Amino acid sequence: MIKIKIRTSFLHLSFGAAVIFMSALSCFAQGEPPTPTPTPTPTPYSTQTLAELMQLHQAALKSDYAYRQVAHLSNNIGPRLTGSAQAQKAVDYVSAELKALGLEVQLEKVMVNHWVRGEETAALVEYPGMAEKTTQKIVLTALGGSVATPAEGVTAEVIVVRNFDELEALGRDKVAGKIVLFDYHFDKQMAAQSRAGEAYSQAVKYRAEAPSAAGKLGAIAALIRSVGGAEYRLPHTGQTDYKKDLPKIPAGAVTAEDADLISALAPQGPVRMHLVLTPQQLPDVVSYNVIGDIKGSEHPEQIVIVSGHLDSWDLGTGAIDDGAGVAVSMEAASLIQQLHLKPKRTVRVIAWMNEENGLAGGKTYAKDHEKEIANHFAAMETDGGAGHPLGINYATKPEARSFFEPVAKILTDSGAGILNLAEHPGADISPLTKLGVPGFSPIQDNRTYFNYHHTAADTLDKIVPRELAENAAVVAVTAYALANLEKPLPR
Amino acid sequence: MIKIKIRTSFLHLSFGAAVIFMSALSCFAQGEPPTPTPTPTPTPYSTQTLAELMQLHQAALKSDYAYRQVAHLSNNIGPRLTGSAQAQKAVDYVSAELKALGLEVQLEKVMVNHWVRGEETAALVEYPGMAEKTTQKIVLTALGGSVATPAEGVTAEVIVVRNFDELEALGRDKVAGKIVLFDYHFDKQMAAQSRAGEAYSQAVKYRAEAPSAAGKLGAIAALIRSVGGAEYRLPHTGQTDYKKDLPKIPAGAVTAEDADLISALAPQGPVRMHLVLTPQQLPDVVSYNVIGDIKGSEHPEQIVIVSGHLDSWDLGTGAIDDGAGVAVSMEAASLIQQLHLKPKRTVRVIAWMNEENGLAGGKTYAKDHEKEIANHFAAMETDGGAGHPLGINYATKPEARSFFEPVAKILTDSGAGILNLAEHPGADISPLTKLGVPGFSPIQDNRTYFNYHHTAADTLDKIVPRELAENAAVVAVTAYALANLEKPLPR
Repeated sequence: MIKIKIRTSFLHLSFGAAVIFMSALSCFAQGEPPTPTPTPTPTPYSTQTLAELMQLHQAALKSDYAYRQVAHLSNNIGPRLTGSAQAQKAVDYVSAELKALGLEVQLEKVMVNHWVRGEETAALVEYPGMAEKTTQKIVLTALGGSVATPAEGVTAEVIVVRNFDELEALGRDKVAGKIVLFDYHFDKQMAAQSRAGEAYSQAVKYRAEAPSAAGKLGAIAALIRSVGGAEYRLPHTGQTDYKKDLPKIPAGAVTAEDADLISALAPQGPVRMHLVLTPQQLPDVVSYNVIGDIKGSEHPEQIVIVSGHLDSWDLGTGAIDDGAGVAVSMEAASLIQQLHLKPKRTVRVIAWMNEENGLAGGKTYAKDHEKEIANHFAAMETDGGAGHPLGINYATKPEARSFFEPVAKILTDSGAGILNLAEHPGADISPLTKLGVPGFSPIQDNRTYFNYHHTAADTLDKIVPRELAENAAVVAVTAYALANLEKPLPR
Repeated sequence: MIKIKIRTSFLHLSFGAAVIFMSALSCFAQGEPPTPTPTPTPTPYSTQTLAELMQLHQAALKSDYAYRQVAHLSNNIGPRLTGSAQAQKAVDYVSAELKALGLEVQLEKVMVNHWVRGEETAALVEYPGMAEKTTQKIVLTALGGSVATPAEGVTAEVIVVRNFDELEALGRDKVAGKIVLFDYHFDKQMAAQSRAGEAYSQAVKYRAEAPSAAGKLGAIAALIRSVGGAEYRLPHTGQTDYKKDLPKIPAGAVTAEDADLISALAPQGPVRMHLVLTPQQLPDVVSYNVIGDIKGSEHPEQIVIVSGHLDSWDLGTGAIDDGAGVAVSMEAASLIQQLHLKPKRTVRVIAWMNEENGLAGGKTYAKDHEKEIANHFAAMETDGGAGHPLGINYATKPEARSFFEPVAKILTDSGAGILNLAEHPGADISPLTKLGVPGFSPIQDNRTYFNYHHTAADTLDKIVPRELAENAAVVAVTAYALANLEKPLPR
């Protein structure tokens, strides 16, 4: 701890000195573009770059460009499920916007799966204490990729387990022919403690694996308690992951309330459910990653990616997941252009396709650009909502930390000065980071993110314009810093 | 203020003295019932009554009876819309429970309206920026009492107004043939400031009156922004109130998010909606108020009502509106019986029918018992959820306040010592209070009540067992105090 403190203190001084020098320079530079510094600076960035980063930071906080982009994506285009007409409309929109900003734009083809939601209803048709000839509605949604029940649905007893161990303990005899509810609780306490990602990781295991685990024992359908924190009778969708060679059974997520209800009733006597889930898996379709470049002035072949994913789930309008990430990435380009900055490396905006249910965009890009991986200097992704950013996640060699400290220093002004060595900076860039490309993302306040994530309530009102601008500031400043870093990143 | 302080201080002393006396008495009374005090006490209650009130208070806080009742009503019986089989099941259940407690139970017939929800879907079929051949889903629910669209729905342009003035300013030319959205915002700030009732009163005017106001100008349907605080894409139902002699048009409530969406799109260009609402108004049916008496030992003809309403809306399971109110009223009777207390006046538990969409239960009772109104000593109702109680609302002559101060003193131990002179203690008892019967209700923390009120999320998990027990304590103590008050209440 002491070591770190000393280092920080040293940086503070050296950065302070740079600021003084820079201020002088910026007075000088009012009338004409500042000339590059003639000698290597003591920091990883030239004084001109540091001045530009501060400019970017301030401009981002004042801009409403990102908000207008996410407003258009969510309100005017709406839900953008992979394979849908809306997803294509979003491709066309972002492509046109980036062209209007003066970027070199390409659509890179991606074959994507085309799953569509169908009818999704359920009701308890037998339970202890019920009034005769009545049913009780169960609110649920199909998990992405789910196979369908027959159109008329299925009716079966529901058995409740809290985890995989309880399922195993029951065994095939008690599971076969039943609907299994996995009542594993998302840890809201943990999420409130700013460990939402951890809470999500624990619970999402059930979304991914429960259907195959139940199918293996002969269950006819699997339901999970929604993965998320909200208790407003709101089901959370998300992709499930059938294991090869195991029976595929219909899979849905009930709301927290409905999970509580069934869990309260089941110990009192038999609970039977009528369940209708009729999603369809259609043939794969052609879609696109949208790619827009601001060519580097010194190393155009070296690429710094700044990105979010354009597809969303279909229940909400994909404002925080991940219209926001696309919007702040577009904002980075917009600000660079608006301020007439010249990044030394190429800044590449990517609006990825199909993060939610396949990751085809990220995978295809990594494959298509396999030969240029060494030239992918860094990749950034924003896919954790639009909450106030606290700093930067960096997935690089730990010794690169000092390169980011001057950047963090600038971002401290908007409360985003933390540097965190992270393992997984983003799903779409993971095929790149696995190949050694340094990865980055904003650290975001995500305490309430999983209340809305993958639900009908992922809508524009969940975004606080000021906080979105703060995210745009982190993204723009980080991306530009990486593009102008004076040294290579260790990888 | 000083005057009040002096009075409180006086009461504290006199109450303290009573406690000392009482403690002595309770030692004496271990083996046999205590004898009534021979002379009038300086407080409105005998020392024995004060001791019993403290007993009741403690017993209520330790009991889970109320929670088990509301759990059964919400989970096992479920939604209890007036006229439904579940409402009848709830009548039978409460009736049997009160009998099991040893009460004299009667079902008093009430003719109730029988409105049933139908299909309710909506989608924007034209709006600026939309992808071709797509629509955008609008989440809504029919208002109670709404007439239906044709089965295939209606399609029309949506116009947005923020209030009645804006509607009037548009006039018939711009309203006729359209769907009108009233985007009046529930004041969440006000609700957070413990003025939720006031916020509700302001917004609910639109739920009641908007459909007729729009119908008057030729609109073909009226939608309101949901009356409530939650932003989880959750529509709030509730009764609308068509004016006689004006066209009745289909009426629904969209979620806050959907109101925001339409309000954002409409200024950009035409917005057209396809709307399907197919509720039905069926013929009136027979239902019941459930009435259970613990006969008074001295004044059996004098009645103290303790009540909640048994019917609920159909979207949720009616836990906080108003299973909780029924449950704490049942708890008051349960505790009196369990502690073998003998109220001097009759304590009458009433589970009202049809508060939500007609108030037939309250009205019919007042009419049927018209001749006994003078003998209705007091009426209490709990219908504000199950949040922590802060004290007692009393709708009596202001000078009766001093009668309740010893009661408040006891309730202070569970944080419910506030006395508030109120105008409207409860809807079901309003036909009685209008006739001069003193009315009472717990003051409840309702800051989040209108997040769940009339939604699918009104479910058991919204009730904190400890807070429900605190409400039961307020209700039991207040009801018993009223039953044993040594003097008449001024009316």
